[in-house]
Amino acid sequence: MATQFARIEDTLEKHLSPEELAEVRRILYGEETPTIQFTEEAINLAKQRDFELRGYRFQCPAEQTRMPRIVRVGIIQNAIVRPTTDPVEEQRRAIHHRVAEILEVAAKAGVNVICFQEAWTMPFAFCTREKAPWTELAESAEHGPTTTFLKTLAAKHNMIIISPILERDDSDVMWNTAVVINQTGQVIGKTRKNHIPRVGDFNESTYYMESTLGHPVFDTKFGKIGINICYGRHHPQNWMMFGLNGAELVFNPSATVGGLSEPLWSIEARCAAIANSFYTFAINRVGTETFPNEFTSADGKPAHKDFGHFYGSSYATAPNGSRTPGLSRVKDGLLVTELDLNLCRQVKDHWGIRMTQRLEMYGEKFTKAAKPDYKPEIINGN
Amino acid sequence: MATQFARIEDTLEKHLSPEELAEVRRILYGEETPTIQFTEEAINLAKQRDFELRGYRFQCPAEQTRMPRIVRVGIIQNAIVRPTTDPVEEQRRAIHHRVAEILEVAAKAGVNVICFQEAWTMPFAFCTREKAPWTELAESAEHGPTTTFLKTLAAKHNMIIISPILERDDSDVMWNTAVVINQTGQVIGKTRKNHIPRVGDFNESTYYMESTLGHPVFDTKFGKIGINICYGRHHPQNWMMFGLNGAELVFNPSATVGGLSEPLWSIEARCAAIANSFYTFAINRVGTETFPNEFTSADGKPAHKDFGHFYGSSYATAPNGSRTPGLSRVKDGLLVTELDLNLCRQVKDHWGIRMTQRLEMYGEKFTKAAKPDYKPEIINGN
Repeated sequence: MATQFARIEDTLEKHLSPEELAEVRRILYGEETPTIQFTEEAINLAKQRDFELRGYRFQCPAEQTRMPRIVRVGIIQNAIVRPTTDPVEEQRRAIHHRVAEILEVAAKAGVNVICFQEAWTMPFAFCTREKAPWTELAESAEHGPTTTFLKTLAAKHNMIIISPILERDDSDVMWNTAVVINQTGQVIGKTRKNHIPRVGDFNESTYYMESTLGHPVFDTKFGKIGINICYGRHHPQNWMMFGLNGAELVFNPSATVGGLSEPLWSIEARCAAIANSFYTFAINRVGTETFPNEFTSADGKPAHKDFGHFYGSSYATAPNGSRTPGLSRVKDGLLVTELDLNLCRQVKDHWGIRMTQRLEMYGEKFTKAAKPDYKPEIINGN
Repeated sequence: MATQFARIEDTLEKHLSPEELAEVRRILYGEETPTIQFTEEAINLAKQRDFELRGYRFQCPAEQTRMPRIVRVGIIQNAIVRPTTDPVEEQRRAIHHRVAEILEVAAKAGVNVICFQEAWTMPFAFCTREKAPWTELAESAEHGPTTTFLKTLAAKHNMIIISPILERDDSDVMWNTAVVINQTGQVIGKTRKNHIPRVGDFNESTYYMESTLGHPVFDTKFGKIGINICYGRHHPQNWMMFGLNGAELVFNPSATVGGLSEPLWSIEARCAAIANSFYTFAINRVGTETFPNEFTSADGKPAHKDFGHFYGSSYATAPNGSRTPGLSRVKDGLLVTELDLNLCRQVKDHWGIRMTQRLEMYGEKFTKAAKPDYKPEIINGN
């Protein structure tokens, strides 16, 4: 396999003059996002533990009648640690350990809310379309080993943790779920994936169904939080419902590979931030995961044991469309964003996108368009 | 005023190695779009007439049961020609002449469908919030001087022309309208701007109201066409309705300036193409327009006579998210795209985004959320 290209921003910084870089950056990324200075301790720990640590601050004007509501948000991207053939509990334990050591640095960096990648406790085994042994990693959202593990860490670090897992419910139905644990270590609820892909190796519809839990927004000490899991990012109406429920921070924990989605990655979560005047956080795993038995990808190509490179590139976007640089395409990383929740309302006031949404009309139109006898608005042009 | 940066692609091509450029291009723009070779005559005319001529081909696999449906789509971006203080009919006549000479080259380049920028016959005078004299340029969509002028050209060039104008209807109400004239020179209909901005200098709500014509799709010899005018591009649900009505080509004629929207420009129309499996074409005017009386921009800054640089950068996106390079930020231009309409259905089959849309649920949810007694789905996290 060819060496992976590490990071688009590195290439631009290497070759462009400062003036050109500033202009290219403005057009591609929006308003400048100053870097956060971390402590020596945090920097050294990240180096020792071999993960990328980056931090950026979104700018926001002060208001007269509201105090700033400054929050530090962390997102973690990581490769699996052990081979997919190891005993499943060892696989999970190793990932728990790895992410906990990144989480500890997040705590030292003052992070208040953190989110991990989709199905973070396991390899993304759904590509194989085999169930055993990896579905043994499915667990209770409320009482499973991962939630139990994280409740302690959330309380210890005074941090809200969003933990996207493969859930097994009491009747042995599996779901693609995100568990929300608050800063006192309480599970405050969960949300599930609203849109399930049927594309290439992401044929997850044989594992779990679409969520019936709607678009809950968790009203927490550190902001109103929504979670739009993976493929739901291709559906603008899904993002919109989180906005209509008042979300200020919307996370998109994902698992996606270069050949499929990379040119879409940097724009979908960002476009959603603009359309809904909230912050978005797009998180993708890294690395290539190899499975014991070969499988095909429904693309006419020969069977293979991995389905390509998870390209990381996790990033955050502000409601005004400004975005941070991405994390690496190849390496574990922690991205810390410092932001003021007040910017959401400021952008609503400035752009007026919510106000001009004509929601009632679209409610009616979507309802009509969903009916089997829908007649599209077609004008014959011949 | 500082010299304007001309084109992001030029900067990348100048500095990056071919390998780096290919990787950066893939991540930013998606699949390669080979250039179209134009005739010497077309190239020379573009040079003589001092506009940029660029052409790209979107790739599409052949099918067994459908013949390719190859269409060449043109979009034109242009500066106004005469000062905004000249007699209004002379202003319009000069723009008519300028665009007609670009249109002639489009015909020589084999273009089947073309769209101009928003309110293409006039300066974007809405920033002034003055009515006279520029609202005298409003005209009948069916019988006005611009439509009369274009009917002849459409028939002559065997080309569908989409002409976004300021419309004055029979009861003297103004609308922001796009007129669709088919290749035989018949007006087949019109569509109007669905979402009216109230942001900065784009305070157009004092000139015209939101469209009541819905989301018509024009079923033509060269594809099913929708038109999402300017600010409507910030509203994903607006793009969606054109998709639900079967659009294959959706144009976004716009007028927008660097300080406001530039970092959003390259992603919104592109994201819409991905979310709806259709082609999109984003068109923005170029240049700086100066008005006789000073006006303010509702941003606390001093009054001024222009409201910034229209940055052009018109581009096209395929349903798979691949996009062409943009036209210049500073110069008149014609972008020609060769595409196969069949790609829309191929992408629907591959990605399944329409299939997984859960439209009925969102119809219900939007309807509820639009009601004054709506209770958001909030989970208390404290």
